[in-house]
Amino acid sequence: MSKVLSDLIESLKCLPGVGPKSATRMAYYLLQRDPDGAKNLANSILNSFKHLGKCKSCNNFCETTICDLCSDSGRNNSVLCVIEMPTDLLMFEQTHSYNGLYYILMGRLSPLDGVGPKELAMNSLYERCKDENIKEVIIATNFTKEGDATSTFITELIKDLGKKISRIARGMPSGSEIEYTDTGTLAQAISERKNIN
Amino acid sequence: MSKVLSDLIESLKCLPGVGPKSATRMAYYLLQRDPDGAKNLANSILNSFKHLGKCKSCNNFCETTICDLCSDSGRNNSVLCVIEMPTDLLMFEQTHSYNGLYYILMGRLSPLDGVGPKELAMNSLYERCKDENIKEVIIATNFTKEGDATSTFITELIKDLGKKISRIARGMPSGSEIEYTDTGTLAQAISERKNIN
Repeated sequence: MSKVLSDLIESLKCLPGVGPKSATRMAYYLLQRDPDGAKNLANSILNSFKHLGKCKSCNNFCETTICDLCSDSGRNNSVLCVIEMPTDLLMFEQTHSYNGLYYILMGRLSPLDGVGPKELAMNSLYERCKDENIKEVIIATNFTKEGDATSTFITELIKDLGKKISRIARGMPSGSEIEYTDTGTLAQAISERKNIN
Repeated sequence: MSKVLSDLIESLKCLPGVGPKSATRMAYYLLQRDPDGAKNLANSILNSFKHLGKCKSCNNFCETTICDLCSDSGRNNSVLCVIEMPTDLLMFEQTHSYNGLYYILMGRLSPLDGVGPKELAMNSLYERCKDENIKEVIIATNFTKEGDATSTFITELIKDLGKKISRIARGMPSGSEIEYTDTGTLAQAISERKNIN
């Protein structure tokens, strides 16, 4: 196989979820079926690294110093929701039920992968939480081992700031049936039951 | 979301099997976790279109006029195996049981997708088969409707050249059990049974 082609296949493997088989398929597809799309992709990648930086306020990717969401005066700036990834922000926005601000960790604490408090720039989060407008910090990391550990770490980190700290609710998913719910979720749903009368 | 970022996500969707969700995940992954891999990918794509052409003999992608395989004097140039895609060539080579040459159609006849004899450059295949060294043409298109139709078309196309024309065998896969084989395959295996005494 030509060196240029094997380089292309090799470089496609950097995409998450793409192994040798998919990379080979993608390479031939781009060459044969979608040269315009491929060149466009190459330029978009180079363009992104040229123009995108991090928002000083929420840590999300943006082209300006402060992103559109953080500079939107219509948002409630007394609540800060701490999330792991930019994709989580998109999910919360799709619910149309949160109007506060965000802070994106860009990961979770995971010592085995070499991700500690320094890699997540926890100081920046601390500085952000100091903001006197912020009354409540909602921790919305994932309900995985790493996400829970990150949540505990953040709680410890910012508790001296005297803000209200909350964690999004854990329990049964909407529309779920008890019969088909895993026992871990069900156990949590019982222990975190809510008084309704 | 920033325009540059949404452009990146949009352009990732040109990859086969990548929808809006995967494209979003890939974009953030590249930006956050693998900037070097991403830049490398962009350059590999641009490089491919700059350097890769088609082999005059087998129609595969290569950097030279005639690819390494076609110019390898150790290959048996009396047999030509006609396949749909370059990935099929890789599969045949991995079997280590074919030492002839290949011709790659770069697709299959599929009128509904606008792929006719012209799009597959069937004239070039005809010209290639004219080569007096070639004694046998093995048709190894897929055993799908389109692959079978392509096989029939090629047979008609080249029959006047007086070469031996064969089709790779259809039947039960190696290691398969009758109980778990689909009826179509089983029916073919019966009708194409081989005398063994």
